[in-house]
Amino acid sequence: MQEQTQHTPEMVTVNFLPIEKGGQVPAGSTVLQAAIALGVQLQSTCGGKGTCGKCRVMLSPEDRTDPLPSEKKFLSSEQIAQGWVLACKRNINQDMTIYLTEQKDVFDRKTQLEKTEALQSIEPLVRKHYLKVTAPSIHDQSSDWERFEAALSGIGSSVRFNLGITASLPRVLRESDFLVTAVTAGDELLAVEPGDTHERSFGLAIDIGTTTLVIYLMDLNSGKIVARGALTNPQQGAGADVLTRIAYAADQPGGVKQLQTQVINGLNQIIARISEEQGIKRSEIYHAVIVGNTTMSHLFLGIDPTFLAPAPFIPAYRHGVNVKASELGLQILEDGIVNVLPIVAGYVGSDTVGVMLAAQADRLEGVHLMVDIGTNGEMILVGNGRILTCSTAAGPAFEGAGIKHGMRAADGAIERVYITDDVKVQIIGNSKAIGVCGSGLIDAIAQMLKAGVISANGRLTYKDSELAKLSTALQKRIRTMDENREFVLVWKEDTAHGEDIVITQKDIRNLQLAKGAILSGINVMLDHLGLEAKDIDRIHLAGAFGNYIQKESALGIGLLPQVPVNIIHSIGNAAGNGAQMALLSEVEMERAGKLARQSEHIELSTEKSFQQYFVSSLNLA
Amino acid sequence: MQEQTQHTPEMVTVNFLPIEKGGQVPAGSTVLQAAIALGVQLQSTCGGKGTCGKCRVMLSPEDRTDPLPSEKKFLSSEQIAQGWVLACKRNINQDMTIYLTEQKDVFDRKTQLEKTEALQSIEPLVRKHYLKVTAPSIHDQSSDWERFEAALSGIGSSVRFNLGITASLPRVLRESDFLVTAVTAGDELLAVEPGDTHERSFGLAIDIGTTTLVIYLMDLNSGKIVARGALTNPQQGAGADVLTRIAYAADQPGGVKQLQTQVINGLNQIIARISEEQGIKRSEIYHAVIVGNTTMSHLFLGIDPTFLAPAPFIPAYRHGVNVKASELGLQILEDGIVNVLPIVAGYVGSDTVGVMLAAQADRLEGVHLMVDIGTNGEMILVGNGRILTCSTAAGPAFEGAGIKHGMRAADGAIERVYITDDVKVQIIGNSKAIGVCGSGLIDAIAQMLKAGVISANGRLTYKDSELAKLSTALQKRIRTMDENREFVLVWKEDTAHGEDIVITQKDIRNLQLAKGAILSGINVMLDHLGLEAKDIDRIHLAGAFGNYIQKESALGIGLLPQVPVNIIHSIGNAAGNGAQMALLSEVEMERAGKLARQSEHIELSTEKSFQQYFVSSLNLA
Repeated sequence: MQEQTQHTPEMVTVNFLPIEKGGQVPAGSTVLQAAIALGVQLQSTCGGKGTCGKCRVMLSPEDRTDPLPSEKKFLSSEQIAQGWVLACKRNINQDMTIYLTEQKDVFDRKTQLEKTEALQSIEPLVRKHYLKVTAPSIHDQSSDWERFEAALSGIGSSVRFNLGITASLPRVLRESDFLVTAVTAGDELLAVEPGDTHERSFGLAIDIGTTTLVIYLMDLNSGKIVARGALTNPQQGAGADVLTRIAYAADQPGGVKQLQTQVINGLNQIIARISEEQGIKRSEIYHAVIVGNTTMSHLFLGIDPTFLAPAPFIPAYRHGVNVKASELGLQILEDGIVNVLPIVAGYVGSDTVGVMLAAQADRLEGVHLMVDIGTNGEMILVGNGRILTCSTAAGPAFEGAGIKHGMRAADGAIERVYITDDVKVQIIGNSKAIGVCGSGLIDAIAQMLKAGVISANGRLTYKDSELAKLSTALQKRIRTMDENREFVLVWKEDTAHGEDIVITQKDIRNLQLAKGAILSGINVMLDHLGLEAKDIDRIHLAGAFGNYIQKESALGIGLLPQVPVNIIHSIGNAAGNGAQMALLSEVEMERAGKLARQSEHIELSTEKSFQQYFVSSLNLA
Repeated sequence: MQEQTQHTPEMVTVNFLPIEKGGQVPAGSTVLQAAIALGVQLQSTCGGKGTCGKCRVMLSPEDRTDPLPSEKKFLSSEQIAQGWVLACKRNINQDMTIYLTEQKDVFDRKTQLEKTEALQSIEPLVRKHYLKVTAPSIHDQSSDWERFEAALSGIGSSVRFNLGITASLPRVLRESDFLVTAVTAGDELLAVEPGDTHERSFGLAIDIGTTTLVIYLMDLNSGKIVARGALTNPQQGAGADVLTRIAYAADQPGGVKQLQTQVINGLNQIIARISEEQGIKRSEIYHAVIVGNTTMSHLFLGIDPTFLAPAPFIPAYRHGVNVKASELGLQILEDGIVNVLPIVAGYVGSDTVGVMLAAQADRLEGVHLMVDIGTNGEMILVGNGRILTCSTAAGPAFEGAGIKHGMRAADGAIERVYITDDVKVQIIGNSKAIGVCGSGLIDAIAQMLKAGVISANGRLTYKDSELAKLSTALQKRIRTMDENREFVLVWKEDTAHGEDIVITQKDIRNLQLAKGAILSGINVMLDHLGLEAKDIDRIHLAGAFGNYIQKESALGIGLLPQVPVNIIHSIGNAAGNGAQMALLSEVEMERAGKLARQSEHIELSTEKSFQQYFVSSLNLA
């Protein structure tokens, strides 16, 4: 017996769903190692040590075993029952199927918010026309294109010549007995399909966020959302915010093309998944309407964004762009139309125009303020027949950047804070706390202020006389670590990672800077229209952040002008809704152009009053 | 010493110029074998036996040795002195450079014929505008595209958005200090170039023949031809005439794409050569105007030509087509414009529209007949304010098809025949005779008729009484071989291949059918306008064939209506000239569209009178 021969490692097959990526890995690899080897993106910040709790995947029922201690730490009993495990802690010893989370929790927040009641009628740019084309004869030798054109003109439509369609028109006409459906978008011919296909017509409303890509697959006949999909923007690898992405595009050879390819590939991945789920062919998706901030729009189109970053912040273009899907590689019908909504300025992009569209900024009476805080913060003030816009780079703090335990609004994020004698928190996904998201942070600061944990100038209470006024429980939560003052929001016993979750003095300062910039921008705009806070009839909060924020807390920390809380309204993913409206209505598409041209952009860096407002806006309330 | 090791064949390097195709072949290969191995096209009909004399190449001076007996047979002493050899008879024993003939003789005939005096002024569609664009500032934050557009509108021009150009516009503007040259074609923006480049502007006039591709590289400022190039249409492999090409496209999977790729590759090969010779960059060629028959136009555009072949001969399109060079892969500027001139009917293509343009068909007074005989035959009759067109498949006989010793007008072709007491011939290239080309055939038949060798009904003289009237030398030339009557044009002693070159009774019949169809078509058109031959003011003969034909002979055999010989004029490569005019003048480009729409096509197969005329047109004169 020869027991000493060298064994090559046994290989097992692993398949990741729903992305359908799979292959062979050595038996005994962890799921995380397999994911890395196969190019499957999994969240993990601790590098497989089991301390971040982020690399969650779901196992098939046949592969489930008892939870490990580290899993119990990060996962709720409900999640464990569903089959969730930590990818870095599980080995693959036989062929396995692994289900990815894809941060469903975050994406649900992004995609479930839509209100298209603003749309008055469904009149999409893309139309279908069922035609009977006259067959040729020796006495009627005109070309196939001419007889097709004549049939189209018979119903009052006319289109420009399309080479690709003409290339196969002779065969399509004869194989369908000269009965075809023409698909048009204005004077563009998108397709000529055999027979009557008017019941099948789909389009995409796409919101390209710096952080998240969201797609709504819509039925252009009914105007209904057929499916939703989201994905982390794959450009994340080049940096979390627009400035680092611009730097990457400017400095790396081929950087623009690379970032364009990443976002297009990400979108194509979503399109492939949701269209397959719905049994919709790529060639039945005729139109895509895109919104995104100016940098995202530039990168999506492959346009050099270099000069957006330094003053004077010049975009390459501002009008609405209309290109063929094949020019971009977006995998809908090759001749399908891609419309990127117009831009107002270097930092007020088509996403803001989408908000204006959804909020019907040009039809409002009275004075309206719209605030969209994502990775960036954009504000719109409507009043006296004018539309003003401005932007600040204040956003990131609300998405976790520069905040010690800051994180995105994913499972494990503290989203509500209640302080009475002690602290109570509400966590997304009912798991143990991992960190604090934007709305949780605002809530925390507002509650801390109210309870006397911090003063109006943002300073954590330190005088004994003031500390004495707090409950013993709260007193215990205020401490100094490494010479920095901090407030313990959740004790380590109740956190996923076994560390205290704290709000530091520095976190509070960062939040003050961010909210100060937003409030100052709003005040500068009010000045431009000769108005005051009391003149505001309604505040519209756009985006997921705007939807989950506690309005009282936003007022409480002075993020917004002091208005009655009942005039503050969340309007959902208004940018995405605007894209949907433009997709479903040619009139809305044109309105987007008018809104962008009509808007007056206030460049805050040139406004003297901005600095003055800023200094006085730093105080909490 | 081990002398018995197996030798792998020694390899030598061979390089074919001017096409710059080269590689390694086993030492001792013939040049013809090397060409086949490396995919270099060489004419050869005998398969390397040394009996066709067609595989001519030129050696470098250092590789030249004494001529071989077979070379002396096919090559003139002048050619031998120049270094010409037969590729099938020469072995490659060391590294060698081989020069291809590329049938320069044929191409010269095609490319040297141009007359653009018809052009009144040079006003090309493509224009260059030197612009000073306003630089941005914090108080002028409009986009780069907008400030570029403003500069363009300052000189009264406006263009549509171009994504590709905008993608790099920010950098181009800043690197050129905001001084740029915009290249426009109507409302299309083709390029934005740094600095002032208005002196460099080039375009191509392209004539896609079934047999030969011809390109004129033109300076769009001066209107002058900078260079010419030609190449055998690489689609030849799929058949010599349009019907076999259509069958190939219809029957082979991917056949259309394949034929499109072949013609585009062939054109790109010419473009690369002539532009490199002239030091002109691909990106400085902004525009190409294409003419060709309907099948060639369809295949160039990648459009299915299947239904052109069967009645009712329906083209896919007829109007002028304007596409981006990148859509076709034509290697000029990627955003360059490609215009294919319009089509009149399934067998009256943009080449005929080019003839109309060059002959100014819409500005002529009186009655004018234009005849263009290439692989196909197209006729135009202008009179009474109308323009009629018709076509016949008569052409091939004039290019050698169905003629025993027929050949194209290349070196060795008999192009003139003189018969008095005996026969004298004139041969292209001063080599020994290989065969007879179209103009030689017409000359031969006309002279044979005049000398009494054939009767008016086309029959070779056979009665003794008639033979007796001929000289002894001529009598000897009339003979019966394998039961077929024939006339010896050149005795084997004077031919390149050592065989008698003859005109057979069948050749004469084929010519009668071809010329009968053309004359009948002309007569049908005259009837449509209520005119007779005597009303014709001028006959315009287009193309190389029309240039080299003996007018008296054409009248002599009744190819043309009986008119005074002095009203017959050759107008050179009128189709190519038309393309040049459209390239150099936007007005002419528009006129091409008007001419095509104004033309009335006569479908001869539906004309009852055509059959009657045909029967009576078969007689020679």
